[in-house]
Amino acid sequence: MEANRLLIKNAKALVGTHPKGTLRVAGASMAELPMLEHGWMMAENGVITALGTEEDWPGISDWNGLEVIDATDRYVLPGWCDPHTHSVFAAPREGEFVDRINGLGYEEIAAKGGGILNSARKLRAMGEEELYAGAKARLEEMMHQGTVAVEIKSGYGLDAASELKMLRVAQRLKKTLPLQVRTTLLAAHALPPEYKDNRAGYVDLIIKQLIPQVAGEGLAQYVDCFCERNYFTAEEMGLILEAGNKHDLKGKVHVNQFSSMGGIQAAVAHNALSVDHLEVMEDADIESLRGTRTIPTLLPSCSFFLGIPYGPARELIEAGLPVALATDHNPGSTPSGNMNFVVALACIKLRMSPEQAVQAATINAAAAMGLAEELGSLTVGKRASCLITKPVPSLAYLPYAFGQDHIDTVIIDGRTVRTGETAA
Amino acid sequence: MEANRLLIKNAKALVGTHPKGTLRVAGASMAELPMLEHGWMMAENGVITALGTEEDWPGISDWNGLEVIDATDRYVLPGWCDPHTHSVFAAPREGEFVDRINGLGYEEIAAKGGGILNSARKLRAMGEEELYAGAKARLEEMMHQGTVAVEIKSGYGLDAASELKMLRVAQRLKKTLPLQVRTTLLAAHALPPEYKDNRAGYVDLIIKQLIPQVAGEGLAQYVDCFCERNYFTAEEMGLILEAGNKHDLKGKVHVNQFSSMGGIQAAVAHNALSVDHLEVMEDADIESLRGTRTIPTLLPSCSFFLGIPYGPARELIEAGLPVALATDHNPGSTPSGNMNFVVALACIKLRMSPEQAVQAATINAAAAMGLAEELGSLTVGKRASCLITKPVPSLAYLPYAFGQDHIDTVIIDGRTVRTGETAA
Repeated sequence: MEANRLLIKNAKALVGTHPKGTLRVAGASMAELPMLEHGWMMAENGVITALGTEEDWPGISDWNGLEVIDATDRYVLPGWCDPHTHSVFAAPREGEFVDRINGLGYEEIAAKGGGILNSARKLRAMGEEELYAGAKARLEEMMHQGTVAVEIKSGYGLDAASELKMLRVAQRLKKTLPLQVRTTLLAAHALPPEYKDNRAGYVDLIIKQLIPQVAGEGLAQYVDCFCERNYFTAEEMGLILEAGNKHDLKGKVHVNQFSSMGGIQAAVAHNALSVDHLEVMEDADIESLRGTRTIPTLLPSCSFFLGIPYGPARELIEAGLPVALATDHNPGSTPSGNMNFVVALACIKLRMSPEQAVQAATINAAAAMGLAEELGSLTVGKRASCLITKPVPSLAYLPYAFGQDHIDTVIIDGRTVRTGETAA
Repeated sequence: MEANRLLIKNAKALVGTHPKGTLRVAGASMAELPMLEHGWMMAENGVITALGTEEDWPGISDWNGLEVIDATDRYVLPGWCDPHTHSVFAAPREGEFVDRINGLGYEEIAAKGGGILNSARKLRAMGEEELYAGAKARLEEMMHQGTVAVEIKSGYGLDAASELKMLRVAQRLKKTLPLQVRTTLLAAHALPPEYKDNRAGYVDLIIKQLIPQVAGEGLAQYVDCFCERNYFTAEEMGLILEAGNKHDLKGKVHVNQFSSMGGIQAAVAHNALSVDHLEVMEDADIESLRGTRTIPTLLPSCSFFLGIPYGPARELIEAGLPVALATDHNPGSTPSGNMNFVVALACIKLRMSPEQAVQAATINAAAAMGLAEELGSLTVGKRASCLITKPVPSLAYLPYAFGQDHIDTVIIDGRTVRTGETAA
């Protein structure tokens, strides 16, 4: 079989060229984004085999089967990783968006049949084929926007059969699409109507039936819980994380979106991989994350769309922590899977520097979905998954000119999934 | 010469099909966006000649030279009009963006050589050819995003020769690009360093030299003034508007961005076409606009990027007024010329309904640049300048799914300037 060989040459800069072994970046280091100006990068069979600057260019002896991309005036970045999405869903909910514009509150929208339970009702009724087709189109759009890895949660099924259906759809996406997919059981997304008066019964179903089955069938790598008033308590989340750990499903959890109620402490106690949202943070919550391996993950597009506070990126970084970014793509609170806009919001609204935002959307985002060994930086031995920008004057121009599409080419595992002007 | 004939058929809906003679939409009418479901539209030589629904489809007898676009599942909207931009400038200013992230205030940035005077220094030094090339690329991107008409201001020259240079570049863009261009003399954008101690001298230069010359040479249709603390007073603006009126340059002015200081009252007294920005509005300011022909124009992308308040769209509409939307495209406070994002912000942040936002970005935006006789709605006799969306479930989906590019095809004067899937 002919080798799949790729050379990207003449890059204005290769961005995110971390040394081998860097698996996350925290605190002051987040401002230090390693770059190689006038860079080139070689890949073979989908893996980065060499990279450098024009000074150490070894030349090419074997042009056989070599694809060459000329990146003159363009930046080459690691493809975006998106470690928090709900991209498998039945239908958009723009009707609720209009209801909100018209002044209806969450409770009124819920009373009209809106919210997570709206998504659940539609999802339960929809067949796998249709669910798959909708999610596939969304993920293709996200790849077009530079995303090379995505985490997908269940959580609109809220009964065993429907949660499993969502995860099977996500598995099928993983097999058929070129991007990396990791999946998370989020049965504890809301209390299903059938368990309205039996919270313990639903938590039991998750712990005793769903977690063992999902782990046994390899349908998910992570387990999640929406720890929030009117959803699940920190104690209930603790039980779910404990059961997850027993079955090798690490925690990746929704905490501190609207209230600080002990979720972070419970997540840290169970060694969760990430704590996500964090719009409402007490000093003690930040303190609890110090010295742990749990990655704070911010979702600024959700804050933008709902008009809730933005997560405290600068405070987290000042506390020496890593920060990751994700879209939170879902039909209710974040109808966008565009990581470029997340990076722009991170700079415009979270006041992260462009370098911090890029690290948060690449290496730390990869870490927050357990992929930092293979993605998140331009490093020999990692997957050759990257994006090439249009000609832009600087890296800061990407978040600054927030209304434009800056991406020219997207490459996943050495193969072009979005062809731009760099195509010969 | 063969006639340029176009048929758009099978549209999910034609949107904005106002009856002939509707030249602006105000108050409660803004929520009533006329649409024809299952619509078709004919154009000849760049002008809309007929439109209707499948019931009144007359059939085609002459297929000679007819271009046919099948818009099944797609909406057809009037192309966006953008009645407030500074799209001719020398260079982006992403360095100041990073300075702001790092906590520098306006005064510190100005002290480092930033702000409008930064743009002015670079613009004075740049030749017409280079200025033209940069602005042309920006306008092409805006056309790709669905904009079919754009107002362009001077205001980075701040001396007679450089202001005239900017307007000549805008005139050249008008001649060479398919979209409609209207131009505005904004010499009163900031006090140039040369007149630091001679405010009256600079206002005199504008009134006695620039306005007569610009009007005489047909370089602009409008005159503008930045009425704000540390810029120009309402009294100075009144003198400029008065001189403009004498030379048929109507006012289109920057008022109430950071302070309410009588600018609206002065603009209304001089019969200005539009008052733009309006982030800081007193009740009396809204009251002053009632019963006038002056159009309040909001620039939500500026509020988004600077983090200043959003304009009071709902209050203006409730007062029975029309509202127009524009990008404010400029390198300092709004580095985006994307009207789709403006429409999304109008719904997400200004809480306008999708129908109101579309009217504000089409018919009222056309009115705010004096083009409502020829653009802003799908009406027989108007220019055949429109955009065709990708397949989307509803009109509300456009602002709701804010991170996606929903446009498939853009047509200006009957000719396709962005080709999408609808191309045969």
